[in-house]
Parts: sequence; C-alpha cells; structure tokens
Amino acid sequence: MGRITSRHKVVRIDLDHGVSTRVEVAAVEEPLEIRVDDEVLTVTMRTAGHDIELAHGLLQAEGIVRSRDDVLIARYCADTENMNVLQLQLRNGGGVPATAQRSLISHGGCGLCGKTSIDAITDSPAYDEAVATSTLRVPAERIAELPDLLRKGQVVFDKTGGVHAAGLFGLEGEALVIREDIGRHNAVDKVTGWALLEDQPTRDTVAMVSSRASFEIVQKVAMASIPVLACVSAPSSLAIEAADRLGVTLIAYTRGRRMTVCSHPDRVLLP
Amino acid sequence: MGRITSRHKVVRIDLDHGVSTRVEVAAVEEPLEIRVDDEVLTVTMRTAGHDIELAHGLLQAEGIVRSRDDVLIARYCADTENMNVLQLQLRNGGGVPATAQRSLISHGGCGLCGKTSIDAITDSPAYDEAVATSTLRVPAERIAELPDLLRKGQVVFDKTGGVHAAGLFGLEGEALVIREDIGRHNAVDKVTGWALLEDQPTRDTVAMVSSRASFEIVQKVAMASIPVLACVSAPSSLAIEAADRLGVTLIAYTRGRRMTVCSHPDRVLLP
Repeated sequence: MGRITSRHKVVRIDLDHGVSTRVEVAAVEEPLEIRVDDEVLTVTMRTAGHDIELAHGLLQAEGIVRSRDDVLIARYCADTENMNVLQLQLRNGGGVPATAQRSLISHGGCGLCGKTSIDAITDSPAYDEAVATSTLRVPAERIAELPDLLRKGQVVFDKTGGVHAAGLFGLEGEALVIREDIGRHNAVDKVTGWALLEDQPTRDTVAMVSSRASFEIVQKVAMASIPVLACVSAPSSLAIEAADRLGVTLIAYTRGRRMTVCSHPDRVLLP
Repeated sequence: MGRITSRHKVVRIDLDHGVSTRVEVAAVEEPLEIRVDDEVLTVTMRTAGHDIELAHGLLQAEGIVRSRDDVLIARYCADTENMNVLQLQLRNGGGVPATAQRSLISHGGCGLCGKTSIDAITDSPAYDEAVATSTLRVPAERIAELPDLLRKGQVVFDKTGGVHAAGLFGLEGEALVIREDIGRHNAVDKVTGWALLEDQPTRDTVAMVSSRASFEIVQKVAMASIPVLACVSAPSSLAIEAADRLGVTLIAYTRGRRMTVCSHPDRVLLP
C-alpha cells in the first residue's frame, strides 16, 4: 500500500502572532489507473489504500460487475515500480461495455505517479513558464481578506449551501470575477475561461477557491498563468507538489487572519 | 441559461422540536457534454450557467487552447431541447489531442439531461430494483448518531483535515466499514467495493458520507443496493431526483439532532 499522508515544509502566517516555518501533514493524492481486460477504464486521483475495493465499487456503480465472482483477477501492474496501475480481468472477458463511464488520461506507460502527472503539464506547449518566474508580491493582509470577498459573491450558496465558489482578484482586492458550481473544478474552469474570453491579463491576479486544493485545481490555475492560489481548506500532497513544480504560490487554510503558504512563499509580503 | 436552483419537497426532522414538511432549495446539478470538432471531450456534472466559460477554462487547462482566438465557434447543440450539449470548433480543426484528459459517458444522442442520466442507471441490467422496494425502517435517532460514528473512524482526517469519509452501518449503528479518500466518490467506491468483496448483504444497511450528496454518490449507493444514504451536507438537485427515482432514501444535513429527508421518507421511523 502506498503512502496515505505526506509531510511538507510550509510557512505559517498569523497576522497577529507572527510567522513560523513548520511541517504540514497532507493527505496523499496520487493517480490510480484502472485497466479492465487490458483496456484503460479510468484514471482517478485518489488516496492510496484499498485500491482493489475502490475498483470493485467503481465497476459495480457502472454496471460492469454485479458480484465478486465477476472479477477473476485484480492485481497491480507487474511492470510498474509503484502501485498506481491496477489490472482487472473479468470472468466474461468482455471488457468495458460501451455504455460505461470512462475517463482517460493518456500517459507514458506503467510508471504512472504524481510526478508523471506534473510532467504532463510542464511538457505541454501551452504551459507558460512565465507563471513560475512571476515576481508578483501580494501582502498577506490582502490574502486574508479574500475569503470574505469571495463569500460576498456567492449568490447560489446563500440559497442552497451546496455549491463551491472560485474567484479571481486584482492586487487591490477587487473581484474580477466570481463563479459558483456544485463542482469545485467547474467553478475554477468558469473563472479561468472568463479570463480567457475577456483577454484578462492574469499575471497580477490571485485566484481563491472556497474548497480544498487538489492537483487539478493547481493545474487549472497554472495553465491560466495565475501565480497565486489561495484556498479555504486543506491542500492535497499532489497539489503542493504541483504548485511547487509549476511555480504557483499555494496558500491553504486561509481563514481569519491566518494562512499556510505551501509553496513559493516569497510572493507573500509579510506585514 | 438553465436553472441554477430547484425546489424539492422534503421532510425536516428535529428530534427535539418535531417534524415538518417544507420546500428545500437545492443547487442544480445537470450533465454538460463538451464536444470539440464533433468529438466528445467530456461530460461533466455542473450547475448550469457560464457554460461557454467553463468549456474554455477546461480546454485551456488541458492545453488544447491558449487564447480565445483558438476557438472559432462555441454554441449549444442545435438539435437538443435543453442546453446541456456544447459544441466547440477549434481554429486549427485538429480536434482533441491524444494527450488530453477526457471522460466519456455514452448516451443516446443530444437529449442529455438529468433524466437521461438516471435512465441510464434504471436501464442497466445490474440495477437491482429490490433497493426501491426495500421495506427497511431506521429510527431517526439512529441516523442522528451516524456522523459521530463516522467521524470516529476517520484516521487520516485527524492528521490532515483534507479527506472525505464514507461508511456502511448496520441497523444497530455498528460500523461495518469506514473508508477515507481525498475524493468523496472514491471513499464511497471503497465502501461499496468492500461490501462486494466481502459478500456483505446491504439490504439492511445505511451508507453515510461526510460530504455533500451528488448524483454519482446516489448512483453508487443504489447500484450497491443500499436503501438509505445519509450525508452531512447539502444535496444537489440531481441527487434528490435520482434518489427518488432509484428508490433510495436520501437524508441530507444530518447534523446534531436534525436531518432533512429528501426522498422516500417512509423508511425513517419517527420517535
């Protein structure tokens, strides 16, 4: 079984009580590729452990298996150095029905891991390294104001309590755009898509999300060339690693007058 | 633009102050299919509105477009009666690169909507209608105990605060299995997969999740023939509609001594 938690050196800022360097424990996020009869059914970002259960549950939900007898073999790919590729062989050998949900991320062979997921971004011609070299500086006080500013823009949340929000803010704390969605990834896509459609320069902006930070949210922010991402809640291991590699300043636990800077802390100006 | 919120008749139970019928406002969850150069890139569950932004943001994150000029046309499918299929035409006309992330749900033509998503489940030979006809009865007091019981099983959450949990409970409140994952869907898959692997009968069990309830979570619980699903937070519109159609009792906002029964309330025994 892979790691379940990982440790990361972070900078903890408390605007009333000062700054300290500490070690943050994050839940591990790693890709798991599930192959059914040699066909890739899906790649899901998950916390390692109980992967065979996960695959059985997923296949049951998609109507592919109905009992454990429907799965002849479930084992990790023998060619891989890690435990991120699971191979299942079905009794009927029919592979994945055309009606089953599937999501595919192409990648280079069995060595699927967090690092290859990040490499896929840095290798993309569309990834702009300018985000990594950004000399943007944002006062910590400004960051601390963002959760309230985001909250003020949450129209649907006020009615339902059931949606996430993402926002893009200028350096004076002005909200350029705020979007809500039941899916936190969708909310971020709506924000970055707005910036693309509006030709909004992003190099001097900060993105804020009402949720946790996952790998995919860091990916979306980096691909939109936004150098700073703040989130209200916890970061995953791979969110921190991706932010570090992609040059994004990731700020987690942005609550009250406190925040935890998980990567590239030089962009956050202390009081 | 489609609906953003929807109204549902629910039963509100307060163990100290009685029972009332009321109208709950839920955030709308509907599928959006994004087609790029006539190829399906993805189907995402989203709240309607700002769909063209969403598609641009998603394509940027996947490295498919870098500026708005890369998209020649973005419009809803003309053949569809709703606004859940978006067609994009790229300037280079190259379609979706093989390296792009994609997730596919096959379905029957342009009429994609919440109803077709639910139909896909009821049409599956693996869907067991026994869940819909279950005569299970669970005291409301028992349901109210589940969040604490689930919380006690959350090992990773204690360390990181960054993971969701799902659990399966017997009628005496005993935890049959509790699993954690950064993805709430994964946590449910691990629980239902455990039951499948253990030949655990599920007809007299209750599933509990630490998160909101989405369509996919109801789907997983229904396909595992679990008749009751409780969640700590808000349900989406499509979670309520799916639970209603699939015969699952969906209980939301399970907090303290209160809960909101969104479908099939006859399974919840009042004090």
